[in-house]
Amino acid sequence: MDAGQVVGTGIDQDRLWSDLMTMGAIGGTAGGGSMRPALSDADREGRALFRHWAQEAGLELRTDRIGNIFARRPGTDPTAKPVMIGSHLDTQMPGGKFDGVLGVLAGLEVCRALTRAGVETTRPIEVVNWTNEEGARFQPGVMGSAVHAGTLALEEALARTDPQGRVLGAELERTGQAGDAAVPGEAPEAYYELHIEQGPELEAEGLDVAMVTRSSAMCSGYATINGQNGHTQTLAMPLRRNALVAAAQMILAIEAIGASVAPEGMVSASVVENWPNNRVNIPHLTKLSWAVVHQDPAGREEIVARIEAEVARIMSETGLDIALEHKHYREPCIFDADLIAAGVAKAAEMGFACKTMPTLTAHDALTLSDRCPTALIFVPCRGGVSHSEAEWCTAEQAAKGAELLLAMVRDAAA
Amino acid sequence: MDAGQVVGTGIDQDRLWSDLMTMGAIGGTAGGGSMRPALSDADREGRALFRHWAQEAGLELRTDRIGNIFARRPGTDPTAKPVMIGSHLDTQMPGGKFDGVLGVLAGLEVCRALTRAGVETTRPIEVVNWTNEEGARFQPGVMGSAVHAGTLALEEALARTDPQGRVLGAELERTGQAGDAAVPGEAPEAYYELHIEQGPELEAEGLDVAMVTRSSAMCSGYATINGQNGHTQTLAMPLRRNALVAAAQMILAIEAIGASVAPEGMVSASVVENWPNNRVNIPHLTKLSWAVVHQDPAGREEIVARIEAEVARIMSETGLDIALEHKHYREPCIFDADLIAAGVAKAAEMGFACKTMPTLTAHDALTLSDRCPTALIFVPCRGGVSHSEAEWCTAEQAAKGAELLLAMVRDAAA
Repeated sequence: MDAGQVVGTGIDQDRLWSDLMTMGAIGGTAGGGSMRPALSDADREGRALFRHWAQEAGLELRTDRIGNIFARRPGTDPTAKPVMIGSHLDTQMPGGKFDGVLGVLAGLEVCRALTRAGVETTRPIEVVNWTNEEGARFQPGVMGSAVHAGTLALEEALARTDPQGRVLGAELERTGQAGDAAVPGEAPEAYYELHIEQGPELEAEGLDVAMVTRSSAMCSGYATINGQNGHTQTLAMPLRRNALVAAAQMILAIEAIGASVAPEGMVSASVVENWPNNRVNIPHLTKLSWAVVHQDPAGREEIVARIEAEVARIMSETGLDIALEHKHYREPCIFDADLIAAGVAKAAEMGFACKTMPTLTAHDALTLSDRCPTALIFVPCRGGVSHSEAEWCTAEQAAKGAELLLAMVRDAAA
Repeated sequence: MDAGQVVGTGIDQDRLWSDLMTMGAIGGTAGGGSMRPALSDADREGRALFRHWAQEAGLELRTDRIGNIFARRPGTDPTAKPVMIGSHLDTQMPGGKFDGVLGVLAGLEVCRALTRAGVETTRPIEVVNWTNEEGARFQPGVMGSAVHAGTLALEEALARTDPQGRVLGAELERTGQAGDAAVPGEAPEAYYELHIEQGPELEAEGLDVAMVTRSSAMCSGYATINGQNGHTQTLAMPLRRNALVAAAQMILAIEAIGASVAPEGMVSASVVENWPNNRVNIPHLTKLSWAVVHQDPAGREEIVARIEAEVARIMSETGLDIALEHKHYREPCIFDADLIAAGVAKAAEMGFACKTMPTLTAHDALTLSDRCPTALIFVPCRGGVSHSEAEWCTAEQAAKGAELLLAMVRDAAA
């Protein structure tokens, strides 16, 4: 073991870091991030590398019908349900080197560390790469774990299309990622996911890790603004019914609401589509959408109500019709109290500065927490920045998270 | 001749109207407009109908290499240069039944009227459908007449791509519209175009026709706003550098500038592209564009300067970088004074209420006016609305314009 190793129990910090950088170079962007949207050519390459490393580590591979890849380290009891470690290798467009990737590659390193230490476990350990967590190319996100759980039908997932009209099922075949393992899949004994925080708290407070207690209240907002088409170079300005102008008013109103409810809640308009999107045509149809998040359902309801009030004002002022809908409500999930306590205790034993905290956004762990005891471990990320080429954590921060993961999984699989 | 005919010289008002409605049904939209973007399947159908009607009228057809269709009524002097009547059958997405279409179909009716009346002309008369005037699918617009004039290279036009990446030259072949007549083509003796006004003046003043004196000063504006990517559900609101928020500020600022310079000038932001355009990602790149128009170059320069000032303010307030460019400057073209006077005199003879006025937007006639004496005739359009499914003029308004066109062309070709 080299000088880079954090504690004596087995994570090879340099190997984990090297793996993160190597994977990050696949679909690497000029800005230092990665672009591996689900079932793209780059995602295929990233998956091939994961399989290579898993085989190198002696793990047994299988792939299910939605492309989730399972790399299994057998246990001594062939009838025991596995302890699962998972996250995702797909990224935003562009995304960073850590979101999701850390959880998968730390899982591999946990298996290698156990093997290096000669540790046999009773239960098998399975490292999972879930298909399409990000939803960057195909909606909805958190897809592979939902199909595995049976909360999203395989047929529905396979029929999804990306903005270019390519069908998910066809892309799964084209990239060679359609396996034969059945879905829904059996729930594991327990599930562990290591992830960057995606917020600023751990870094600001100088902490090493967090055990996540709960998720936030979320929903998505959609507005369809109906204007009237006309010629931008000839129609009298007072007669214009420009849907894009009402969209602009909404974007600013939503941003102001987000600023006023932070940090417990957040919202920014982030998606716009505009028709006919030609310089000589007044936009007659503009669609906007956004994600609403708040630590508490009541706070989310307040954000929704304030957006509704702003939209009513904008409709009244512009005379344009705006159809507004909030849907895809997700209530907070509460993580397993015993695992949280176990993680906090382990961290203390290992000398890691730890706290408990909620997560604002969704992870595959939310899906799993409905099926089995689930632990979500956070490590710091620089400036709280994620979904960004600038996303970053240090080799030591990553390794400390992996050490805690190793310790918890070793106990769970013992 | 039936009761619908306006004056005795030969335009069949009901036939012209029937042709407009029949053509308008090709690519017809639920909202009462038409969608025949250049070299689409619908444009191919519209062109086939035009060829059918032209052959039915005894005209000789040829197509040039950019797909401009010429329907020729021979004159008695085989060496004489033709008098040309033209406009375009392609539409915005969606567009109306009159913009461009009226000019082409009135040209056909002029030829039929001369034949019905047994009139031979010395010069040939050619009715032209110019390819891609609208620029709705392939940029730039006013393309076919520019290639014919030699101001746009054929190779450059053929290489243009639409937003789906389809290449114009391939679409020209696919739709069977690539002819063998050479480009650039010879300038005609004179050029006449009949068009709806696309503004409210003729209707408001109760006039029948206008002779257009000049065009406006135009340019196009382009902004590239650089934000920073990040997670919409986790990045602290004060740290967000949301390019779409700055775009929204620009949209509102531009609309306010447009309102303050109307009616002599106009501007509205009408095109937006946003990356990565995903609900969980803060937009890191947003592009906006708009068309600037003013009757006078100095007024255009003032609009550009005010937009520059607003962008500087928004950059300063948001801390975001915005690259701003105004280009594609087009100076006013001055139409032929003799033809304007001739048109005014003819209108008076025919009892049509007429005035002279400028045009705000571009037409194929602007391109032709650099090559030969050119006349642009306007008829009223309801509410000044165009580039719209609601675009409208009446059968009588259309026929009066065609009568003036017939009278002017008959004299020019005599």
